[in-house]
Amino acid sequence: VIIVGEKINSSIHSIKEAIEKKDYGYIIELAKKQYEAGASYIDVNAGAFIGNEAEILKEMIKQIQVQVDVPLSIDSSNPDVIKEAMSIYKGKNALYNSITYDDKVLDKAIPVIKEYDMSVITLLMENNQIPESAEKRLEVAKRMVDKLNTEGVALNRIFIDPMVQPLSVDKAFVDIALDTIKKLKEYFVDVNIICGLSNISYGLPSRKWINRAFLVLAIYYGLNSAILNPLDTTLIKMIWACEALAGVDEYCLEYIAKAREGLLD
Amino acid sequence: VIIVGEKINSSIHSIKEAIEKKDYGYIIELAKKQYEAGASYIDVNAGAFIGNEAEILKEMIKQIQVQVDVPLSIDSSNPDVIKEAMSIYKGKNALYNSITYDDKVLDKAIPVIKEYDMSVITLLMENNQIPESAEKRLEVAKRMVDKLNTEGVALNRIFIDPMVQPLSVDKAFVDIALDTIKKLKEYFVDVNIICGLSNISYGLPSRKWINRAFLVLAIYYGLNSAILNPLDTTLIKMIWACEALAGVDEYCLEYIAKAREGLLD
Repeated sequence: VIIVGEKINSSIHSIKEAIEKKDYGYIIELAKKQYEAGASYIDVNAGAFIGNEAEILKEMIKQIQVQVDVPLSIDSSNPDVIKEAMSIYKGKNALYNSITYDDKVLDKAIPVIKEYDMSVITLLMENNQIPESAEKRLEVAKRMVDKLNTEGVALNRIFIDPMVQPLSVDKAFVDIALDTIKKLKEYFVDVNIICGLSNISYGLPSRKWINRAFLVLAIYYGLNSAILNPLDTTLIKMIWACEALAGVDEYCLEYIAKAREGLLD
Repeated sequence: VIIVGEKINSSIHSIKEAIEKKDYGYIIELAKKQYEAGASYIDVNAGAFIGNEAEILKEMIKQIQVQVDVPLSIDSSNPDVIKEAMSIYKGKNALYNSITYDDKVLDKAIPVIKEYDMSVITLLMENNQIPESAEKRLEVAKRMVDKLNTEGVALNRIFIDPMVQPLSVDKAFVDIALDTIKKLKEYFVDVNIICGLSNISYGLPSRKWINRAFLVLAIYYGLNSAILNPLDTTLIKMIWACEALAGVDEYCLEYIAKAREGLLD
């Protein structure tokens, strides 16, 4: 599973505070810790700072890139903000988080993705709406992958988000998300399937157990990437076990190796 | 999930030793602990003691029933042993663990099940073989449920075991077991679906993580009972989370209640 570390997000109180106090040491430390825990990308989000979102994103990127050699996931719903943030980004490996199938978004986002050779997370939303059924979500995915591929984005740099909605609102959201993952997995080769894991547990207490159980299901259905907390060691061990069960980890070789290293006690 | 506590099994070294030393205090303590942890049945197995299996089972049953008021799962492949053990069992709630679709077994087991009004675990095996495909296993299940029901065993007292075989031998065993659970769940109403959880991780190191991840999948596919270690608190929390995700725990009411009690930290 390709992990995007979720912890540097301005919607989290301690992060917002650190940004306000310009305590970048705290943020850099969190980037390092997530990287060491196995994150392939570190998400950076400054969406809570309306008006100076781009400026703060740039500062976070600068500070992190001096200290930690890990690709970043540039997290904003505003393409202009991502464009400005990318102007100071070092490297060709950033992740655009995220686009939707809306002309206003795509017209601005695609030139940025191409100019900076970015990977991209695409939500299965069209005209600001989430299609209800898995079938309709697959249709949006097909059009989106076509579009991105035509623009020169390689399939293995596309991350499709099936749209995980809260269990607390409707139990059917669990089944629809898993069914969408299954259909995406059956249809596409090479394209990645990602989700923002904590969306499933929104509105519930003790969210981490719901997140852990849902991730097991999602991996078995074909998810190969997730935005999550890599510092949750129980979650990471569940991922390794599920990769073995799903056959992603062939012959359980990785699982056995981790066990030998004492990482599965 | 209806839990059958697996820990009093003579194949476990410490249990074998306790039996040899006639240290029934240890065994009674384990029965109590498993009951307090939520087990609906406590399995008792003396299969390691060839020749005096029945005698030891009877002693364990006697000792446990004086101290702990919980139904027992009488675990033996030999119907004569179970018959003898049941002669001293108090109550009408024991679980026969287990039968297969073999005339030699059924001819002896069914009279015992009827005489002592037992619930019963039935393995999906016929003529000592496990059918390869989920379809064939469903066929065995249909015939078995028919047979038991004709003999007067109520549907809700039948526990069907889909036969979980080791991931370490073949990854396909995971898919076949889950597919069998799904088909059983679709076909039967009221009948329970159970498995011996640890079979999935046989031959692998750090088995508990594989067990935990597999149980999440099995519950989502329709399993409603398992023979497992109820003292594994991480496993129990994963069960509660998965029951919420699977909709067994409607509106997550149980999950929210457990969280309020501080049981999901």
